[in-house]
Amino acid sequence: MESILLQALQMKNRGRPPVWLMRQAGRYLPQFRALREKYGFLEMCHQPELAVETTLLPIQLLGFDAAILFSDILVIAEALGVGLRFEKDLGPIIERPLSQASDVDALPRINVEEKLGYVAEAIRLLRGQLKVPLIGFCGAPFTLASYLIEGGSSRDLKKTKRWMLTDPESFHQLLRLLSEVTIAYLKMQIKAGAQAIQIFDSWASALAYKQFREFSLNYMKDIVEAVNIPSILFCRGSSVFASQMAEAQPDAISIDWNADLSCIRRQLPNIALQGNLDPDILHAPRSVVEREVRRLLDSMRGDPGYIFNLGHGITPEVPVDNVKALIETVKSYA
Amino acid sequence: MESILLQALQMKNRGRPPVWLMRQAGRYLPQFRALREKYGFLEMCHQPELAVETTLLPIQLLGFDAAILFSDILVIAEALGVGLRFEKDLGPIIERPLSQASDVDALPRINVEEKLGYVAEAIRLLRGQLKVPLIGFCGAPFTLASYLIEGGSSRDLKKTKRWMLTDPESFHQLLRLLSEVTIAYLKMQIKAGAQAIQIFDSWASALAYKQFREFSLNYMKDIVEAVNIPSILFCRGSSVFASQMAEAQPDAISIDWNADLSCIRRQLPNIALQGNLDPDILHAPRSVVEREVRRLLDSMRGDPGYIFNLGHGITPEVPVDNVKALIETVKSYA
Repeated sequence: MESILLQALQMKNRGRPPVWLMRQAGRYLPQFRALREKYGFLEMCHQPELAVETTLLPIQLLGFDAAILFSDILVIAEALGVGLRFEKDLGPIIERPLSQASDVDALPRINVEEKLGYVAEAIRLLRGQLKVPLIGFCGAPFTLASYLIEGGSSRDLKKTKRWMLTDPESFHQLLRLLSEVTIAYLKMQIKAGAQAIQIFDSWASALAYKQFREFSLNYMKDIVEAVNIPSILFCRGSSVFASQMAEAQPDAISIDWNADLSCIRRQLPNIALQGNLDPDILHAPRSVVEREVRRLLDSMRGDPGYIFNLGHGITPEVPVDNVKALIETVKSYA
Repeated sequence: MESILLQALQMKNRGRPPVWLMRQAGRYLPQFRALREKYGFLEMCHQPELAVETTLLPIQLLGFDAAILFSDILVIAEALGVGLRFEKDLGPIIERPLSQASDVDALPRINVEEKLGYVAEAIRLLRGQLKVPLIGFCGAPFTLASYLIEGGSSRDLKKTKRWMLTDPESFHQLLRLLSEVTIAYLKMQIKAGAQAIQIFDSWASALAYKQFREFSLNYMKDIVEAVNIPSILFCRGSSVFASQMAEAQPDAISIDWNADLSCIRRQLPNIALQGNLDPDILHAPRSVVEREVRRLLDSMRGDPGYIFNLGHGITPEVPVDNVKALIETVKSYA
């Protein structure tokens, strides 16, 4: 029988919603922190055995309905040779950020299987061990471009937007290049066994309505069209951009926590919807977690295409007991 | 004859839209930077003559259709005795941030006229010199509370949201107290001569849909009801929250840059709308500035209640010539 995640992605789930969390194999788990004391973050992405062990942690410990490959959207940046490291408290650092059109021209054409084969290997190993579906993923070209230009995380994407607005041609060239690499990367993940994919556009909320279509959505659309398994689009900003996102015809849209999910459902009756729980709720007392999870479940009661998730990734300081409460509340929901 | 700003606030403007910018008396002006070399930021708020000179700068130099008092939403925090200073690159610092319910109990009841009389004095002086209307302003209680709890600017409002979710009662107590002070503060501004007011809820975008109503909107509603001059609500997040914001019955809603403004207009046909231009557009070449300003004007052509503005404050590095291009494009629009 098909998993409830894949059923929900087809708008055919007849029971309680499937549940998984973005960054479910993350710092909130003591077992993850123990691994991170022994290994670097990128080392855990690079070594298939470590990526497998990490991916499995939340499945074995907490019983989510889907696994998401442990990796990072920026392994593509690393493969492109711009230099990537992770620094405590700062997050990812791109060592040689792009600052002009000629930097785009200078980016190499890469063989994805060669540079990122370790990801395929982790997926193959995982499929041998997993009983729940495995979600592969990638960053959206716009979000990848932002990291490459800003050199790391940025609150306002100043450099990125200036480039985008002053030289849209070379910015599009960068987005096209990133889309091509991303499509090859996802095809490799799918060939290795990924059963669904999620595209993360974490920085889309920096964009105006028309900019979102031109500089982000159009490229995600190309990616969705190129893959032949269920796809989920995640944007920070999806509360505003949901209708546009649906035009790319993904199987599901993952909604941040600003919007009322039942309003989005009325606007978009024919597409699976994921997410929407405020991630900060997981810092509240257990009774509040249960109440808010139930409130969201009630608002989507009987929906054949709802996938329970947060509006963004789970944060490092969340108590594991609250995650357990969330999962139990979803699983016992009738 | 009544100014076009006040006409637009009543949905009665028959010509081109009025134009002003949030933070129009800011660092992008060389004359402002010259003043800041001589005086501290708070000194410029405290001394009525300096606040007047600064408020007038963009009116005299660039010809905006409205003036907004030069001040800061955090002068209320200062008046509450929590300690406020501004640090280069860090922005505002609250020296004694609140961290528990007893800190709320310990906040003093203040006499606004006594503590913030310098603001009234600046307004009185300005009204003697201004030919365009003067907008007074305040921070929304939720945004003020965030600064008081975080101790300064924060990307994710972690402490604020944890407090809000774990002890909503004392959080509401803080919001009530801030609303009361704010209402007294605005009444003082109005008595001194402010002709419209804007409430800034810069951090509302951290909130989920229902949280926005409970922890922010309800208090802004109290404030709107308590003032007897036109009011404008600004939220970062207004692209999602616009319909809820309209329930507070302000005269206008200022929209950030994520949404398509003509969609919002279809949802809300009977309220003045302000803003929506992506502030980063002002970093693009002049031709792009003109094109994007015209595109927005075209989308609101003939609208009796549109007020031209950015979706957020103007940023320090914007070239003055681009601001001139923006103003000229709006003023010559027919």
